[in-house]
Amino acid sequence: MHTQQQSASERAELIHSYQHVRVETEQLCAPLAVEDFGIQTTVEVSPPKWHLAHVSWFFETFLLKPFRREYREFHAQFGYLFNSYYQQVGTMHPRPERGLLSRPTVAEVMDYRAHVDEAMCALIDSAPARDWPEINRRLIIGLNHEQQHQELLLTDIKHIFSYNPLLPAYRGDLQVPRNRPVSMRWIDGKQGQVEIGHQGAGFAYDNEMPRHTVWLQPHRLANRLVTNGEYLEFIRDEGYTRPELWLADGWYHLQQTGWQAPLYWLHRDEQWMEKTLGGLRPLELHLPVTHVSYYEADAYARWVGKRLPTEAEWENASNTVPVQGNFRTADCLHPESPIAAEGLLQMFGDCWEWTSSAYSAYPGYRADAGALGEYNGKFMCNQQVLRGGSCVTPQAHIRASYRNFFYPQERWQFMGVRLAEDVRG
Amino acid sequence: MHTQQQSASERAELIHSYQHVRVETEQLCAPLAVEDFGIQTTVEVSPPKWHLAHVSWFFETFLLKPFRREYREFHAQFGYLFNSYYQQVGTMHPRPERGLLSRPTVAEVMDYRAHVDEAMCALIDSAPARDWPEINRRLIIGLNHEQQHQELLLTDIKHIFSYNPLLPAYRGDLQVPRNRPVSMRWIDGKQGQVEIGHQGAGFAYDNEMPRHTVWLQPHRLANRLVTNGEYLEFIRDEGYTRPELWLADGWYHLQQTGWQAPLYWLHRDEQWMEKTLGGLRPLELHLPVTHVSYYEADAYARWVGKRLPTEAEWENASNTVPVQGNFRTADCLHPESPIAAEGLLQMFGDCWEWTSSAYSAYPGYRADAGALGEYNGKFMCNQQVLRGGSCVTPQAHIRASYRNFFYPQERWQFMGVRLAEDVRG
Amino acid sequence: MHTQQQSASERAELIHSYQHVRVETEQLCAPLAVEDFGIQTTVEVSPPKWHLAHVSWFFETFLLKPFRREYREFHAQFGYLFNSYYQQVGTMHPRPERGLLSRPTVAEVMDYRAHVDEAMCALIDSAPARDWPEINRRLIIGLNHEQQHQELLLTDIKHIFSYNPLLPAYRGDLQVPRNRPVSMRWIDGKQGQVEIGHQGAGFAYDNEMPRHTVWLQPHRLANRLVTNGEYLEFIRDEGYTRPELWLADGWYHLQQTGWQAPLYWLHRDEQWMEKTLGGLRPLELHLPVTHVSYYEADAYARWVGKRLPTEAEWENASNTVPVQGNFRTADCLHPESPIAAEGLLQMFGDCWEWTSSAYSAYPGYRADAGALGEYNGKFMCNQQVLRGGSCVTPQAHIRASYRNFFYPQERWQFMGVRLAEDVRG
Amino acid sequence: MHTQQQSASERAELIHSYQHVRVETEQLCAPLAVEDFGIQTTVEVSPPKWHLAHVSWFFETFLLKPFRREYREFHAQFGYLFNSYYQQVGTMHPRPERGLLSRPTVAEVMDYRAHVDEAMCALIDSAPARDWPEINRRLIIGLNHEQQHQELLLTDIKHIFSYNPLLPAYRGDLQVPRNRPVSMRWIDGKQGQVEIGHQGAGFAYDNEMPRHTVWLQPHRLANRLVTNGEYLEFIRDEGYTRPELWLADGWYHLQQTGWQAPLYWLHRDEQWMEKTLGGLRPLELHLPVTHVSYYEADAYARWVGKRLPTEAEWENASNTVPVQGNFRTADCLHPESPIAAEGLLQMFGDCWEWTSSAYSAYPGYRADAGALGEYNGKFMCNQQVLRGGSCVTPQAHIRASYRNFFYPQERWQFMGVRLAEDVRG
Repeated sequence: MHTQQQSASERAELIHSYQHVRVETEQLCAPLAVEDFGIQTTVEVSPPKWHLAHVSWFFETFLLKPFRREYREFHAQFGYLFNSYYQQVGTMHPRPERGLLSRPTVAEVMDYRAHVDEAMCALIDSAPARDWPEINRRLIIGLNHEQQHQELLLTDIKHIFSYNPLLPAYRGDLQVPRNRPVSMRWIDGKQGQVEIGHQGAGFAYDNEMPRHTVWLQPHRLANRLVTNGEYLEFIRDEGYTRPELWLADGWYHLQQTGWQAPLYWLHRDEQWMEKTLGGLRPLELHLPVTHVSYYEADAYARWVGKRLPTEAEWENASNTVPVQGNFRTADCLHPESPIAAEGLLQMFGDCWEWTSSAYSAYPGYRADAGALGEYNGKFMCNQQVLRGGSCVTPQAHIRASYRNFFYPQERWQFMGVRLAEDVRG
Repeated sequence: MHTQQQSASERAELIHSYQHVRVETEQLCAPLAVEDFGIQTTVEVSPPKWHLAHVSWFFETFLLKPFRREYREFHAQFGYLFNSYYQQVGTMHPRPERGLLSRPTVAEVMDYRAHVDEAMCALIDSAPARDWPEINRRLIIGLNHEQQHQELLLTDIKHIFSYNPLLPAYRGDLQVPRNRPVSMRWIDGKQGQVEIGHQGAGFAYDNEMPRHTVWLQPHRLANRLVTNGEYLEFIRDEGYTRPELWLADGWYHLQQTGWQAPLYWLHRDEQWMEKTLGGLRPLELHLPVTHVSYYEADAYARWVGKRLPTEAEWENASNTVPVQGNFRTADCLHPESPIAAEGLLQMFGDCWEWTSSAYSAYPGYRADAGALGEYNGKFMCNQQVLRGGSCVTPQAHIRASYRNFFYPQERWQFMGVRLAEDVRG
Repeated sequence: MHTQQQSASERAELIHSYQHVRVETEQLCAPLAVEDFGIQTTVEVSPPKWHLAHVSWFFETFLLKPFRREYREFHAQFGYLFNSYYQQVGTMHPRPERGLLSRPTVAEVMDYRAHVDEAMCALIDSAPARDWPEINRRLIIGLNHEQQHQELLLTDIKHIFSYNPLLPAYRGDLQVPRNRPVSMRWIDGKQGQVEIGHQGAGFAYDNEMPRHTVWLQPHRLANRLVTNGEYLEFIRDEGYTRPELWLADGWYHLQQTGWQAPLYWLHRDEQWMEKTLGGLRPLELHLPVTHVSYYEADAYARWVGKRLPTEAEWENASNTVPVQGNFRTADCLHPESPIAAEGLLQMFGDCWEWTSSAYSAYPGYRADAGALGEYNGKFMCNQQVLRGGSCVTPQAHIRASYRNFFYPQERWQFMGVRLAEDVRG
Repeated sequence: MHTQQQSASERAELIHSYQHVRVETEQLCAPLAVEDFGIQTTVEVSPPKWHLAHVSWFFETFLLKPFRREYREFHAQFGYLFNSYYQQVGTMHPRPERGLLSRPTVAEVMDYRAHVDEAMCALIDSAPARDWPEINRRLIIGLNHEQQHQELLLTDIKHIFSYNPLLPAYRGDLQVPRNRPVSMRWIDGKQGQVEIGHQGAGFAYDNEMPRHTVWLQPHRLANRLVTNGEYLEFIRDEGYTRPELWLADGWYHLQQTGWQAPLYWLHRDEQWMEKTLGGLRPLELHLPVTHVSYYEADAYARWVGKRLPTEAEWENASNTVPVQGNFRTADCLHPESPIAAEGLLQMFGDCWEWTSSAYSAYPGYRADAGALGEYNGKFMCNQQVLRGGSCVTPQAHIRASYRNFFYPQERWQFMGVRLAEDVRG
């Protein structure tokens, strides 16, 4: 039972968490020039300024407006400008035009953040007890939401900078990634009846539930991610010109785009280079390959005679290892090679791992009620599940049951490849 | 053990099957004018003439050229013109331009068919015993392939005729579909560990194998398909204007296309009409709704508070009923209402049933070797599985493990909706 | 003054002209297979069947319906299907979808023609005298309109056949074009005040009037068209890769399309070939270059240090020569080299000659009243004037003041190049 | 003859002019926030930052690099980034991506300007006499070029601000435009032989030459521009839904875009508003209509039974009035009504006036040599001539022979309508 005292300390802790997350977001923008905040290089990428405002709009819309009577909306049109895709909340500014807005300025967006922050702290501090459970629930979602956008901020900044012919670096002081060879080995997975999905007290999104039984066939997972060096062999073996290696949609996409390598690779003066958040660097062979699409991951696996893991295989295996790895806090902001060890390596951090599982509802899935139910459920078509987080994910944000999802042609997240194989009876 | 005699009678039987299938294809074209054979109304639709030639090219390419030394190619460029998507065989004429070819004429295509038929009968009759197993295997695939194109012929003719403002009828003498109300009831499905996938001696495509274990959650299936009358309620409740009912991709697609009803519905003089292979008819309320996309099927299910079945649920349930129903041989060429009875109705025939399962590889799946391996495997992305066959499917072509697959926005096949629901513990 | 008798013989003559033109149109289609009648290879090209019906619709709409009370419309929807662009007449079937109509069949279109012909002959024969002047005026337009479509029939058939990988020939019995070298010489044009535009009693379109004064600067015209051999030098001098030779819009278009030569040139086995109505032939060096866009004509002229003529220069010069040349009646259906002679050669026939004049209204221009006023006037923007007719133009259709017009990127008509140059004082 | 002293004072004057123009450009940007400098709302619009850099690149490329040996390039990639369309100078950054560049920052671009300015002043001051004539010639072009971009800066800023749902104002302190009714009257133009084109000592672009004779038909021009009130009548008479009023290309464009009014008109709460550089204002009926395309200008003229003037008619008439009017220096930055007076009003300033003349070469036209020849000549296709300058044109930039040109669908410049009519003999 919840005493008055418990609640007070819980609230104080939440104010602390709230402020911590909010400050982190702004710190990620510290290296940016004002001009960097407004750019949208492609429809999937949002301007940093938009992220800063949108996450604030989320708190304003789902917490301040419904629960804080005295709340005064910061600007009448920000609801229109900074709603991402919540159709039940109202109309929204077209996504492809986010980069066409010079106003509000960065300073005005920061004022918006401060305005929301002040009201949020007051709300957490003084909301009536009867509202508290729902406020608490939504606040946790809001903080997780902002953490997701922290990751997107970094991947979008990477895209913005990499698209500029001047190739500016986001930061010049990043940790250098570890780049050592580690042998690939095969780790047996569990077979038969297992359970996946979230359980227990911690936070999870609706799409990770309910926990349920699945049946695994005999299989093995590679102990580590595929490396740049290994992927380079695929390129050198004409992988990008052999249709028999590709899914039909992937081959069509490749023909349309002219892909010849992962997204940020650059062939210059007969040398492969890689664009990173630390600027342009020579391609390091023992680092994990990253920024590949599902089509490329799948074609690579076919070329090497393997396959990608299912999300159930991945999740079941991940329970054997702690949620640790090269996350954002390592301040490398790039995947690195693992430290050689027994068992599965790099399951968390480094790169999101493409699975062969299409993103769909777990049996018995129910989306949250109302507009918040649009968060995850309506995307359950045409996308693939990725697991494990990346080098720009906040560690606190991730867990074994976490399901990320992207379209099979997308590459601008830190996406990588872990191989799997069937075990014949 | 295979005696000489067994083989001779097997071969005679196969010649008979071959001729039967080939003649059926041509009979389907009997009602067409010469002008009808060349039209491609949209990129998914192929001209009837193209179908007639392509299925012949299949036999020529995979049987006559490799196995019949004395075979003389009919035309040097037909390989280019009538290869559909087999990249390993060679380059191909662009799919969107199939309707731009007045030549070869229909008569020339018929000559091509006769040329192939003569050689095929000779091959079956006289191929050396050492080649027989592979010839036999490929021949069965070729016949199934041609049956698939028989269905496509009808759905493509329907599209071609429906697109023409004059609305010509394909045939004026079709069976009138049964149109009686049958109550919807809910049939419990099996739960726990079950097996799906093809087993046994009959033919099946590679994508139906291997048979494997899956785990089913407690669920129920509707006893029959959703009707036009039920779907009309969804339309009248503004189903096509409420984004909260739709998958995000579906809603986007709807915005782009302006969909307001199933593909062949027509609102004229305040009455709903339906374009059919027998011409324009008033919409019959007790017939199954058909020509809906996955997006519409999914939105309808959400509106009614249910969901679509998974392919495993569907396949498991289908084992309880015989493979019988309103197939092409009923000569109705349109779905109809079931005859009221216990248990599951309409599992086979009438409409292909959208499942919530994305089309992907079964655990342990191996595509066939060589170009024939492109038949099914390379499409395992971005598509949804449909089950059960339709009113234009040859009955002999279908079975419980049969997996059809289309993109979620496609509607020109006879696609329908069976509802499912979870059973809470 | 018009006597009864004069009128009777005038009408008899017109019936004869009418029947003559109508039969000619059908004769042009004699070499076609039924399948050829329905193809639309690109939006500018119409299926032969459509041409046959559209010109009949023109008589039905502008003559039979307004002037023949007892006329019974052939089909209620043909007005929709075969209206080309007359907005004031009503809505129309979308132009890009003309190739999607298998129905009406060719036989039905021929019935339509016969139906219209019968009624037209009756109308001409028996229309009341008070209607006669307007009927006469419209009939002449209708016959000229059908002659234009006779030319389009041939250029569209050429496109349809050339687009087919089998490269069928329209006819195998065509006159072989004369292919002899003739020196290029320069002929002084008139300078100062001259008059252009139609005058006198014969028929002309509204856009050729009124006759008016223009002022010509000192200039010269080339005596003949540019040849394939001359154009080949431009290609060999990298003409298609040097932006400084091209108009900005032309360069952009070239980048989009990948043009490397005129429309029907084909480089095969290290030899240039040309697709013609008589099939594929080796490129003949002394024939006029044809099927070039305005952009190519202009770039070629710039490369050679000359320019294209203005339409006033062309028209003024053309008065010095008779309206004779390689027209459709020569039955060559391809441009040929001229017979060496003094003065200007090839001014009529062979190729439509691109002028540097944008298509616009002559001073004092008034479009015809009503829907017939849409014939020419509404296209006076973004197009260039061409003069002189081509090898597929009926000779009776052309005159010195005739203004043809196409978009600068269009190439599927028989378009060629005559050079001009300024004379410095 | 040019003495040493003359040259020195000429140079001093040019340094003054140079600095004046350069400072003006920067002053136009004073009201902008840093964020405003980077936006490209549509492919025709360039970010203000890009304009600032591009005009400097022009001086660097055409003056500093060829003529100042000691010049040190500011940045190796600025040639790529800030070349607009000079193909002979080298490759260039794609125009549609100008808004994707956060770097160089505004401050860096200002440094670039200062760097160029310093070198330019030194060049003007100390270039050897033998280079002086060419330097002088190019410098004058460079200054005129920058003046053109001053106008584009304002029209692009207007577009950027108007596109933003927040509708920020560029300036809040602008002169209010005069808004009084003035009757439309008709002024006879000269007829017969006249001369147009630039002559004399002042600067003109190559496309204004050579001066040459043209022949004018009897005609009259309206004494003033068409007003908002008059244009509103056209809208109320369903002008935007009547195809018979429109050029075919215009009607097609209207169908594609859904135009219902001039570019910056906004119908809100049953009132017409107009977006201006001073923010949103009620539509003033006596102000000239502006931001209309050629298609709209032409359709309006047809509706009212008139036509647009030819450029020769316009230029000849303009010689009767001084080059004075509502230019940028009036600091209204919006067209206004004229002061009632005899003769032609508003010939200069207020709005660029669409003419019925397609933009093409004058007889005897020769483009400048080298890359500077790309300035005007390569655009002589598909565009229409506009005359007279606008309310955002620097007065010093304009003259009677000045030819501006835009595509017929473009509207974002201050384009307006002056009517003309034929006089029948």
